Amino acid sequence: MRIFVRAAFAALIALTLSHSANRAAAETPDETYKALGLEKNASPDKLYDALAKRYNDPAEGAGKGSFSKFWEPIPISKYLNPRDFYKPPQSMEVDATRGQYVECHSQTTPGWVHSWQNSVHGNLDEIRNLPDTDSRAYKKGLLSEVEGNLRSMGVLKAAEPLKEVGCIDCHIGVNKDHGQHKTELRMPDAAACGQCHVKQFAERESERDTFTWPQGQWPKGHPSHALSYKANVETAVWAAMSQREVAEGCTFCHTTQNTCNSCHTRHEFSAVEARKPQTCAMCHNGVDHNEFENYLLSKHGTVFQTRGDKWDWNRQLSDALEKGGMNAPTCQFCHMEYQGQFSHNMVRKVRWAFEPTPKIADNLNHPWFESRKEAWVGTCANCHSDSFSRAYLDDMDKGVISGIKITEESRSVLVKLYNDGLLPGQKTNRPAPPAPEKDDAGAFFQLFWQKGNNPSAVEYEFAEMWEHHKIKHYKALAHENPGGYTYSDGWSQLVKSAARINDEDIRLREAAEIRAELKRLAPQKRGDLFELDTPFRQAVAAGVGGFALLAGVGLLVGRNRRKGP
Amino acid sequence: MRIFVRAAFAALIALTLSHSANRAAAETPDETYKALGLEKNASPDKLYDALAKRYNDPAEGAGKGSFSKFWEPIPISKYLNPRDFYKPPQSMEVDATRGQYVECHSQTTPGWVHSWQNSVHGNLDEIRNLPDTDSRAYKKGLLSEVEGNLRSMGVLKAAEPLKEVGCIDCHIGVNKDHGQHKTELRMPDAAACGQCHVKQFAERESERDTFTWPQGQWPKGHPSHALSYKANVETAVWAAMSQREVAEGCTFCHTTQNTCNSCHTRHEFSAVEARKPQTCAMCHNGVDHNEFENYLLSKHGTVFQTRGDKWDWNRQLSDALEKGGMNAPTCQFCHMEYQGQFSHNMVRKVRWAFEPTPKIADNLNHPWFESRKEAWVGTCANCHSDSFSRAYLDDMDKGVISGIKITEESRSVLVKLYNDGLLPGQKTNRPAPPAPEKDDAGAFFQLFWQKGNNPSAVEYEFAEMWEHHKIKHYKALAHENPGGYTYSDGWSQLVKSAARINDEDIRLREAAEIRAELKRLAPQKRGDLFELDTPFRQAVAAGVGGFALLAGVGLLVGRNRRKGP
Amino acid sequence: MRIFVRAAFAALIALTLSHSANRAAAETPDETYKALGLEKNASPDKLYDALAKRYNDPAEGAGKGSFSKFWEPIPISKYLNPRDFYKPPQSMEVDATRGQYVECHSQTTPGWVHSWQNSVHGNLDEIRNLPDTDSRAYKKGLLSEVEGNLRSMGVLKAAEPLKEVGCIDCHIGVNKDHGQHKTELRMPDAAACGQCHVKQFAERESERDTFTWPQGQWPKGHPSHALSYKANVETAVWAAMSQREVAEGCTFCHTTQNTCNSCHTRHEFSAVEARKPQTCAMCHNGVDHNEFENYLLSKHGTVFQTRGDKWDWNRQLSDALEKGGMNAPTCQFCHMEYQGQFSHNMVRKVRWAFEPTPKIADNLNHPWFESRKEAWVGTCANCHSDSFSRAYLDDMDKGVISGIKITEESRSVLVKLYNDGLLPGQKTNRPAPPAPEKDDAGAFFQLFWQKGNNPSAVEYEFAEMWEHHKIKHYKALAHENPGGYTYSDGWSQLVKSAARINDEDIRLREAAEIRAELKRLAPQKRGDLFELDTPFRQAVAAGVGGFALLAGVGLLVGRNRRKGP
Repeated sequence: MRIFVRAAFAALIALTLSHSANRAAAETPDETYKALGLEKNASPDKLYDALAKRYNDPAEGAGKGSFSKFWEPIPISKYLNPRDFYKPPQSMEVDATRGQYVECHSQTTPGWVHSWQNSVHGNLDEIRNLPDTDSRAYKKGLLSEVEGNLRSMGVLKAAEPLKEVGCIDCHIGVNKDHGQHKTELRMPDAAACGQCHVKQFAERESERDTFTWPQGQWPKGHPSHALSYKANVETAVWAAMSQREVAEGCTFCHTTQNTCNSCHTRHEFSAVEARKPQTCAMCHNGVDHNEFENYLLSKHGTVFQTRGDKWDWNRQLSDALEKGGMNAPTCQFCHMEYQGQFSHNMVRKVRWAFEPTPKIADNLNHPWFESRKEAWVGTCANCHSDSFSRAYLDDMDKGVISGIKITEESRSVLVKLYNDGLLPGQKTNRPAPPAPEKDDAGAFFQLFWQKGNNPSAVEYEFAEMWEHHKIKHYKALAHENPGGYTYSDGWSQLVKSAARINDEDIRLREAAEIRAELKRLAPQKRGDLFELDTPFRQAVAAGVGGFALLAGVGLLVGRNRRKGP
Repeated sequence: MRIFVRAAFAALIALTLSHSANRAAAETPDETYKALGLEKNASPDKLYDALAKRYNDPAEGAGKGSFSKFWEPIPISKYLNPRDFYKPPQSMEVDATRGQYVECHSQTTPGWVHSWQNSVHGNLDEIRNLPDTDSRAYKKGLLSEVEGNLRSMGVLKAAEPLKEVGCIDCHIGVNKDHGQHKTELRMPDAAACGQCHVKQFAERESERDTFTWPQGQWPKGHPSHALSYKANVETAVWAAMSQREVAEGCTFCHTTQNTCNSCHTRHEFSAVEARKPQTCAMCHNGVDHNEFENYLLSKHGTVFQTRGDKWDWNRQLSDALEKGGMNAPTCQFCHMEYQGQFSHNMVRKVRWAFEPTPKIADNLNHPWFESRKEAWVGTCANCHSDSFSRAYLDDMDKGVISGIKITEESRSVLVKLYNDGLLPGQKTNRPAPPAPEKDDAGAFFQLFWQKGNNPSAVEYEFAEMWEHHKIKHYKALAHENPGGYTYSDGWSQLVKSAARINDEDIRLREAAEIRAELKRLAPQKRGDLFELDTPFRQAVAAGVGGFALLAGVGLLVGRNRRKGP
Repeated sequence: MRIFVRAAFAALIALTLSHSANRAAAETPDETYKALGLEKNASPDKLYDALAKRYNDPAEGAGKGSFSKFWEPIPISKYLNPRDFYKPPQSMEVDATRGQYVECHSQTTPGWVHSWQNSVHGNLDEIRNLPDTDSRAYKKGLLSEVEGNLRSMGVLKAAEPLKEVGCIDCHIGVNKDHGQHKTELRMPDAAACGQCHVKQFAERESERDTFTWPQGQWPKGHPSHALSYKANVETAVWAAMSQREVAEGCTFCHTTQNTCNSCHTRHEFSAVEARKPQTCAMCHNGVDHNEFENYLLSKHGTVFQTRGDKWDWNRQLSDALEKGGMNAPTCQFCHMEYQGQFSHNMVRKVRWAFEPTPKIADNLNHPWFESRKEAWVGTCANCHSDSFSRAYLDDMDKGVISGIKITEESRSVLVKLYNDGLLPGQKTNRPAPPAPEKDDAGAFFQLFWQKGNNPSAVEYEFAEMWEHHKIKHYKALAHENPGGYTYSDGWSQLVKSAARINDEDIRLREAAEIRAELKRLAPQKRGDLFELDTPFRQAVAAGVGGFALLAGVGLLVGRNRRKGP
């Protein structure tokens, strides 16, 4: 029946279904095997080596990036990018065993030890002994898979089980007996977790491979979790800012490239946690990516909030509807799904990405975009009819395009003001932003850096318009939070910005006329009082002695005038 | 004792108590029976027929409304107003039985089938077999009531029980055996649910009847859930907007007239869900009706959030305090209660309604308003003393009136600017809004539509002031979220808008003076450079070639001047 | 091991540990015993008498405060400050027994009786009979402690147990048999609760004593919960506002001095409630103290939201990590902890307090501040390494200082505008605020009071900058909500305000130049048209007849001019 209904719509779907027939292979996309030069039946150690090599390759996005000379890490940076900046504390000289590490940290940092004690890592045998009826029983399979991976790498012997996962396995080396705190201690990155969890590592790394924008809307592999740190350090204003503690605030979310701990908080690394919407919320909230707020206020979020306490969160996503009692989707359910399979690649269906732009809007009919839309129809069809799903996705697309249109109209007003040199202080007091950032009108950097009259108020307004209101408009449409694209955020805020920008446009042009008229009216020799770039006006702009100076000039000129014709 | 205390206060209360003596009758208000021309002992089929007839009557608010020629539905509209726009998909030609519908949709849309399987509809016999000690046991009575209704309508025979409620009962017809997907399929509206749930239908429809504003503050029956779609389509800017996808965003909440699914989400239709505050939140949030945010941050919401996990949400509201462990009210507890009874009429105690206006403030002593206030005292008295309840309601009223006062002061400043023609661009670049909307200063439409210098920035500010800040001020007072009417929203934002509007007032009047002075100073023939309505200035306002033109004019004029006098 | 690690860092820590050796004594700080002139082994009755005497002393912060002549209580005030304003209702003339009070109120206000029935107060014997394995078993000790206190005060006899805690104990007098509703009824303040709960009363009152700012950044004992009502009534604009219902909105949170009910909601007085973050949220949210929002969006809050449903909230905070399954901190865990002990003094580690100012930033190296930072390191070390904790606290401090710096730069721009008399309407239409408030530029009062052109728009902007954005920047850093100090709030908003203030600066200075130039250009006798303080301009500013007048003047002057040279 399902096949019957779908057949009516698109050949793409047929392709889809033949794919999903091979469940296991579908989870790590073909694109990744191809990018790594591997066959799909590559052994775990081969797959891991290829993934880890790329993960650590500066040419592929590891490290400080192309703006590295403009910034230096601060103390907290070593926890946000341990691969590049972590050094063990030199105060602690001890070669400790597995048991000693646990014992010592039970004293010094009891909280994390308790978390570990409650984790799967701390209870491998409990997992091994779960009855098949337990909703966590699927973890037995995962544990075998991990052991298979370690055997493939020679870390475990042929029949050797994994005895435990303690401090030492992640922080010194898997299955080591002891280690030097001062020299061997490491903060695990995603590759460290990936050694045991090869398939999950491959899934998350596959985000680099499935994002191949056909018209170059974004660089390959962006925007994604897998390259989020690279996106961070390649942002000019981030590298340019002197307030490094503020800049590293951005990094706190842009760590998904560097760690698995963004979603599976140390030291419990809970799958239940990672399945709940609040886990996404720490990063996916706020003025330019308010997915969480939109979700909570959607019908989906309403059901989650009112009925989610009765769902069995220990169920895998693939069993959540049927066995977990889940009767509304979570972030994870929709975004980790692709053609019926669930994986750690969260961007396989993404079309509008982070910011809706004309270059996306103009290409929605391209097969790349259409196939992703079809994949969404498949997702929605878990709970909605094909007809509803298409009607809603159509609604969303057209609504988003309205947001792009009003924004582009305001952009042209602003750019004209900038090109005409009419922004307040533009000719007298507009310092350039620090390198590697470059000046521009209403640009992203103006949300984070300010000096003199850069940015002007109307530029900040426009920066908010395209970077906040337009994006929130889209996100609310995408998650069906009606208030978020009608009156609270989105459309109504776009209208506000457009009104303010047009208001400022007429105001600045009128002021320019007045200055021009005054100049024309004034006797010839005083003309340059109203030039915008004289030392006099610069003094006024700097707010130092302007008025005394004005008074003085006025007296002089006044005296002259009294002699005149 | 209760009677003793109350007797001290008002004769109205005595009236109240005699009413609530007749529990069953109180739930559907007398006003509804009267409006429908029925006796209170009318049989279910009679009551239902009268309700459904009115529900479907365009003269009573059904359909596209008086602005129907200005807008057309879009694809998603058929799900928001199925009564007027739904058509079954033509791709599916099948006459299926009860079992076949369930079976097929288990494949195509498994999520909604799982929800139904968890619902009361999917488990009638489980309900019938509940022991009386179960907190859901009251549903046995509801089930009998439904069967009685269906017997009264001839859908069930005298002793015939309702066997099940499956796809077909709601989507084809109650108790049907089979149906044509292509021709008979329907999306149920409130009248469809009402066929079984007559009393609940009558309760919700009664909102049309109990809202009879004595001084015409609102039209009869408004604002209410029962006529929310009518309110939507009768809003001029809604009909006028060319961005139909944005406009239909409003409709996503204005569906309560059209469906019961706004609060009882399909296909579980859970009463527990509908009792939780988050259910109201999907619509009652945001810039102009932030009831949910205020509730969460009130003491009531605090207790709900910290202790609500221990309440028995399966209890009916009438048992929630005594048997459900509920020790703080929810939205539902206060707003569905009236004189000790609970019903689906949520507006029987409403006084300030959606927007606090002078016309309400000036009439609070009228008996209509006073009796509603007394009804509130009765609600609060579940947990507060009479003295506290009155003190708080008095506090709220006076606080709201402060908000009205500051808003009206700013309104007069804005209207004077508009009447004086001083708003930026008002004489050069102020397009009229599209029909059926009409131009006005600081009007509602300006939050959603923008072109040229309509609205000006100060008008948007005022629109936010009266439509957002004043309303949030009131809602925070009404729900006792202190920050919401002191510093975060409400009062402090009203002060901000008032300050900005007065700031703009002096600024625009000074600019007008300067233009007037320049005109006076300029030689006669150039005078019209500073007329606001010359083609020259229009070119400047449009931002096209203004400066080149200005330079040219300046040269000409300058040459003239050098010759003079 | 713990001692070893810590020894490496600071002598302060050694001091710390010797303190915490004496667990019981540590909970009520030495500073309090000293301030009260008591030995640490003072008997409960002596301690209580000294605390209650101070609590009720107007010289120590009780009562209406120094602005008392400027305001009067309104009806709701008697519930916000019962000590000073509560009077029992005169309508109820009855001398009722314990049983009668419960019985009557079961009828009149059933909700609060049900809450009490679910409380510890309503179930003393249930507590006495808890097995030691129950997570609430620690309450047996608390109950014995209460009985000890009452024996020390002579309220209970030597071996007499406390039979119950009913209406009468809190509202008439502990252990009384009956009482007059009309004359003896009281609303309990913190001292009333403190009679039984002496240690908890001492802990909360100790906030007065541990806040001794070394450079006078704040008055002694401020900011704190213990003196929050005093802080409220000593705020000039609060006392000055004519909108008393809005002002009392502030009081709704500033009740912690007056009652214990702010966190332990009547009539359940639940410890579980008081341990949950939402309890703090009712007050700690919003534009200038958004701790709750920051917590929820931090990693700590994420874990709380996703895993907190599995924690045993009946556990005391001191057992929460080890026995309660708590794997992320709550507000309470970090703020009630000091050197390993937990108490009701929530401000013992506070350094930046309510608002980060230069006077704090400049003194962070002072031992008072350093010892508090060390105490924080100890708190973080429950779950983080010493290295991480120091890196993060350093990150926070420097980030906060960036926020102070940008704010102070804008302050100097604004102050110069004010000193130069250039704010819109400053010379024509700037009423002084009502007493006891005094005029100032960009001051706190301008967020709550407005008249004419006071405040100007740019002043409101600055008031928001220092009072909202700078504080939110700090709070987000302190609670590690990245978006809260980068793009959604904090830094990005500080940049916006700085940009707007500089924009306004150049605009106002240009307008002044234009006015000066016009004055210079105009023929001598008309000069005073552009004086800012002529009656003419005042008329314009008031918006009455300005244009008619202007036209008239223009005609006159125009006629004159035509005669000219």
